[in-house]
Amino acid sequence: MQDKPLFFENLSPGMTFSAGPRRICREDINDFAKLSGDHTPLHTDEAYAATTPFRRIVAHGALNLSVATGLAYAIGIFSESVLAVKSMVVKFERPVFPDDHVSLELIVASIGTRKYPDRGEAEFFVRLRNQENRLVLSGTWVLLLRKGPV
Amino acid sequence: MQDKPLFFENLSPGMTFSAGPRRICREDINDFAKLSGDHTPLHTDEAYAATTPFRRIVAHGALNLSVATGLAYAIGIFSESVLAVKSMVVKFERPVFPDDHVSLELIVASIGTRKYPDRGEAEFFVRLRNQENRLVLSGTWVLLLRKGPV
Repeated sequence: MQDKPLFFENLSPGMTFSAGPRRICREDINDFAKLSGDHTPLHTDEAYAATTPFRRIVAHGALNLSVATGLAYAIGIFSESVLAVKSMVVKFERPVFPDDHVSLELIVASIGTRKYPDRGEAEFFVRLRNQENRLVLSGTWVLLLRKGPV
Repeated sequence: MQDKPLFFENLSPGMTFSAGPRRICREDINDFAKLSGDHTPLHTDEAYAATTPFRRIVAHGALNLSVATGLAYAIGIFSESVLAVKSMVVKFERPVFPDDHVSLELIVASIGTRKYPDRGEAEFFVRLRNQENRLVLSGTWVLLLRKGPV
């Protein structure tokens, strides 16, 4: 984790940040099923999962996305500047299986102009890759960020 | 929960499903911070949250989305037919505060044509509303669904 927070005016298109790897284990999938309420057997039942094209249990897509947000936090520079996630566009490219390790890449895509004097929007390209460096999730996030202390 | 599963060929545009309400409590937010790894103080630190435009702790956007997927499961008709979430477009319309109750509405937006004989894609409009019937999350999900047993 870096100590120095990054604020809206410190960002420019092309800046790239990364974090991870983080392991997603079977217990994480179970915990996510409980917390979200999504007990779809593809994520919870080995025997059922064997009948699907994946042939075994896969992590919930929303868990992969949630882990990506945790990795964004782990970059360590946004925790005091992010005011809100405005929107997300997410494509689930490949399944994540128990004990896969995922890593995040965030690239500043564009910087918005905002009427607010104290905050602004930034769009990021998001890429989550597994231990084989294959893309499992891609998309864009628009975050509302504080401007720094004057 | 309904017993009868709904398969790809049972869906048509305009069909509407709903589930909830579900309460999102402070413990859910803490659990989500641990599971995702997103410990942003807006979600975990009352004193810090008081300095933000929200003035108090708000639930992670990805938690709200995760709860929406759990409510989709709770509709009770997709658990054996959903093979994968292909993509999501999500707009976080309003904050969710601890002890808010959220309800889900899913509307079939369109049905894809697919080359696979055993599955197909369906796009859903997604709306999550709080106890005041105000929209907190909107978007679209594209799901890959099994065709039913012949």
